[in-house]
Amino acid sequence: MADYQAPLKDMSFLLHDVFDVTNLWQSLPHLADHVDPETADAILQECAKIAEQEVAPLSQPGHETGVKFDNGTVTTAPGYKEAFQTYAEGGWTGLGGDVEYGGMGMPKMITALHEEMLCSADISFSLYPGLTAGAGLSIVKHASEELKQRYLTRMYAGEWAGSMCLTESHSGTDLGMIRTKAVPQDDGSYKITGEKIFITGGEHDLTENIVHLVLAKLPDAPAGPRGISLFLVPKVLVNDDETLGEPNNVRCGSIEHKMGINASATCVMNFDDATGYLVGELNKGLACMFTMMNFERIGVGIQGIGAAERSYQNALEYAKDRLQGRALSGAKSPEKPADSIMVHGDVRRMLLNMKASNEGSRALSTYISMKLDIATYGEGEEKAKADALVALMTPIAKAFFTDLGFESTVAGQQVFGGHGFIREWGQEQLVRDCRIAQIYEGTNGIQAMDLLARKVAGSKGEMFTVFAEEVQAYIAKTTADNMQEFIAPLAKALAELETLTKDVLTKAASNPEELGTSANDYLHVFGYTAMAYVWALMAEKSLEKVDQDEFYVAKVKTARYYFKRLLPRTQSLIAAINAGSDVLFDIEDELF
Amino acid sequence: MADYQAPLKDMSFLLHDVFDVTNLWQSLPHLADHVDPETADAILQECAKIAEQEVAPLSQPGHETGVKFDNGTVTTAPGYKEAFQTYAEGGWTGLGGDVEYGGMGMPKMITALHEEMLCSADISFSLYPGLTAGAGLSIVKHASEELKQRYLTRMYAGEWAGSMCLTESHSGTDLGMIRTKAVPQDDGSYKITGEKIFITGGEHDLTENIVHLVLAKLPDAPAGPRGISLFLVPKVLVNDDETLGEPNNVRCGSIEHKMGINASATCVMNFDDATGYLVGELNKGLACMFTMMNFERIGVGIQGIGAAERSYQNALEYAKDRLQGRALSGAKSPEKPADSIMVHGDVRRMLLNMKASNEGSRALSTYISMKLDIATYGEGEEKAKADALVALMTPIAKAFFTDLGFESTVAGQQVFGGHGFIREWGQEQLVRDCRIAQIYEGTNGIQAMDLLARKVAGSKGEMFTVFAEEVQAYIAKTTADNMQEFIAPLAKALAELETLTKDVLTKAASNPEELGTSANDYLHVFGYTAMAYVWALMAEKSLEKVDQDEFYVAKVKTARYYFKRLLPRTQSLIAAINAGSDVLFDIEDELF
Repeated sequence: MADYQAPLKDMSFLLHDVFDVTNLWQSLPHLADHVDPETADAILQECAKIAEQEVAPLSQPGHETGVKFDNGTVTTAPGYKEAFQTYAEGGWTGLGGDVEYGGMGMPKMITALHEEMLCSADISFSLYPGLTAGAGLSIVKHASEELKQRYLTRMYAGEWAGSMCLTESHSGTDLGMIRTKAVPQDDGSYKITGEKIFITGGEHDLTENIVHLVLAKLPDAPAGPRGISLFLVPKVLVNDDETLGEPNNVRCGSIEHKMGINASATCVMNFDDATGYLVGELNKGLACMFTMMNFERIGVGIQGIGAAERSYQNALEYAKDRLQGRALSGAKSPEKPADSIMVHGDVRRMLLNMKASNEGSRALSTYISMKLDIATYGEGEEKAKADALVALMTPIAKAFFTDLGFESTVAGQQVFGGHGFIREWGQEQLVRDCRIAQIYEGTNGIQAMDLLARKVAGSKGEMFTVFAEEVQAYIAKTTADNMQEFIAPLAKALAELETLTKDVLTKAASNPEELGTSANDYLHVFGYTAMAYVWALMAEKSLEKVDQDEFYVAKVKTARYYFKRLLPRTQSLIAAINAGSDVLFDIEDELF
Repeated sequence: MADYQAPLKDMSFLLHDVFDVTNLWQSLPHLADHVDPETADAILQECAKIAEQEVAPLSQPGHETGVKFDNGTVTTAPGYKEAFQTYAEGGWTGLGGDVEYGGMGMPKMITALHEEMLCSADISFSLYPGLTAGAGLSIVKHASEELKQRYLTRMYAGEWAGSMCLTESHSGTDLGMIRTKAVPQDDGSYKITGEKIFITGGEHDLTENIVHLVLAKLPDAPAGPRGISLFLVPKVLVNDDETLGEPNNVRCGSIEHKMGINASATCVMNFDDATGYLVGELNKGLACMFTMMNFERIGVGIQGIGAAERSYQNALEYAKDRLQGRALSGAKSPEKPADSIMVHGDVRRMLLNMKASNEGSRALSTYISMKLDIATYGEGEEKAKADALVALMTPIAKAFFTDLGFESTVAGQQVFGGHGFIREWGQEQLVRDCRIAQIYEGTNGIQAMDLLARKVAGSKGEMFTVFAEEVQAYIAKTTADNMQEFIAPLAKALAELETLTKDVLTKAASNPEELGTSANDYLHVFGYTAMAYVWALMAEKSLEKVDQDEFYVAKVKTARYYFKRLLPRTQSLIAAINAGSDVLFDIEDELF
């Protein structure tokens, strides 16, 4: 396997050339007071080092060893504990955390790139700090000051980790059905009882305490999702003097044996009259949990980018080294026993699909992160538009990046031929690790419904209009001749997406099932169109600098590949949607 | 995991209703003398029993245990040895074998369906008899009578197994580069020396002897593929009295640790002055090996169907049982805490994609097998046409069925949500086992080049014309009103494929790289079009019987789904091909 090299140049290009963070951050006062471009660059460089040198070497041994479970305790893979300590000491666990509680307060544009590097290095490792950061987002927004001082500061410092306890065996997507109970106590705390499954990082040996955020229902709570509350349940109780006290009644019952992310502990967690503290208001637990959803779902999307980038780097190195066959247009290296497989059109197709998809995803992820930062720190109309765009684009980030990421890891495996199937080469691990990102944090089917039913239809098309107007304005103002090869297909794709959106909403008005049968394909049409937009942005900035550096030449040529070879994928998706829902519902369940 | 149930009804429908084997087999004298429809049906029923009851239970334990290697010996997974013996005693190892040497002489139409059942039950298990049958095909066609009497009879009887030793570490697709040497001996035998990798079933404990077919070069052989010869190299030498003698100098050096098919031994095989016997003519080894390629490549394609069918059965059972959420059009089971996930459009989309793709693949596989039988047993123009169609359709069978099969196993895993990622549910194994079928026996990229460059372009479009004329004739004669919803899109798809073929060949005449950059997408356009043809055939036969059985109603509705929702995939593929090869070759290797 090739050594991982963080794509710092591409990241810097996005921050500075494409999205001009210098001006952006100056326009957002709450960011400007502690974030500047030089610090951001330095942070990314340091992050690259830790990802490349400390985390990446853990990945393959972790895949082979996995986590060990013994009578309630979980032992992480070799080197994890030391690496986590190094990582925590570097301040990385608090990178995006609120400065008031000891975090570094970095915007999502930075933490997203940091997440990508960590995922390229080792998705399993990334999940421990990732879940901790996610739990931190709910705590900082909804918990009492006392809880924040007591728990959040230690989580940002990397002393304690976090977990999110939502799923129960009969209740995954449909959280309204959870059965975990919370009984109020006289001291204002609650006794939590129930079993949660699929809890990432529910138990491990990386930190001395783990802060669980648990969804549960009070005995008299309303039925369904409106009766869910959120509780902070520490693994070890904390004394009034902040020292660790007695173990709480929280126990890991077992760990799952999975297809991938073997070094991530996926736990069954048993709460048996465990002491918990309310976070946010009673019966508003889902809303408190969804606070972190936008951040977290983009983060899961980024897992797809991270795995795909790693797979691409490996596949490219292999393709350049591997000698097999001759170019169709005549031998390119007649002095060697065979040409490198880079000469084969189909190998180039696989590599360019990966390259165009990875760079496009990274750009779109950075764009969405920018909107999330504006939504968080901005004001007025800009903030309102950003809110709409974030709501719209978050499910796309989660589902589209992981679907493309999975496709890319499979392609990167295919480039290796038979060696891609062998564990020691590392490509099969990336396929297996990436696969879960399409499933957890809301399956990609759920994301598609979130986009089409909840956001697009739910806002009666208004959120969509915010997106369409932004792209339309860009198209209108981009009149340079050398941009028309990108602008023309972008305009066509946008027009088709507008028509499609109108058509689907019209049909759905009389038949809501149209939303469900169209959602997945619709999300992908939207994704390819949004990606065309950021590829046009990248092409424009690169065309200005093609004389300065080959990097920009590569960017323009990859943009061209995207528009010619990947964007046409919308055609078939639109045709399938237009075929309507009847062929899916006219066939009775017994006939499947 | 659901118990596997062989789709016998669908198989019977294909044999009797769609392809009318009664008349077909009577028209092929060499088949008619030992094959009749009743026997075939009985064979398939018995095969279903052994697949369901003997083989399927081995699959999951085999996935977890894998094969064990210790100092040259390989121990197969628990139960494999006993199941193989039962299988051999049932005569299954000789099912497709020549009757003259003790085989049952069944046509590919039967053995293909048998292979599907075995692969649904356990791909790893299927590979041991599968490779044996493959080796048998080369031996029966090219080996001396003495070798056939000595080895082939024992292979058909399941006493001995077979392996195919082609790949070396530096030489996979490009076999011209192999280094294994064969030195002629005075007694007419050869001494074989070299190392082969990725040898499926190279060593195991299922049989007392293994018959290796090994590609090697004589010291004075011409360079490249024209200097390759094929040798039969037994693991244990055979005495003149047919008893087993001394071990040959053949040793398994190690086994591979892989993404999947864990219970299949993938071996590094070392030959060190091992005694071997020439099969076929000197320097014609590749041709001897390719004899079995059509049979074997269809067989690998069928692995994709087998895995996908199993995944579909599991996913369907899960979807019917799993309660989560409510239908968009209102609760369907208000008396339950939630509706089954069958109510969700996106779940139906995944299941119907699988169903339409699996049944279409099975039908197309049966069609290709029929053509292979006609090519093998037929005469005159029918045989000539069948030869062309088999040459054309074999790479499609291998690549298209495995690409669709992989997509289906991934979809079947997705239906399970988080449980799909957990090993105990079995869906992740099917993804992992299926993945190799896209890689081995010639990667799918190689299949695409075989189709477009070697077959379509190589025959100057003549082979393509045989296919187009057959479909065109069917379209012309199928004038019934109720068939036009299928015939119209079939005609459109065929016309588009014809135009595409002409355009690609025209462009390739001046730029051969067009073949390489178009091949993969072209194979898929061809695959979807050919599948539309067999779906039309199935719809036609089903429409005649919709009043008799719900099976036929389901078939018509699934056909409708195929035409509306899957066939449009050709649109994007055609657009990508038409974008041409420049965007893949104008970007220098250094810019990747």
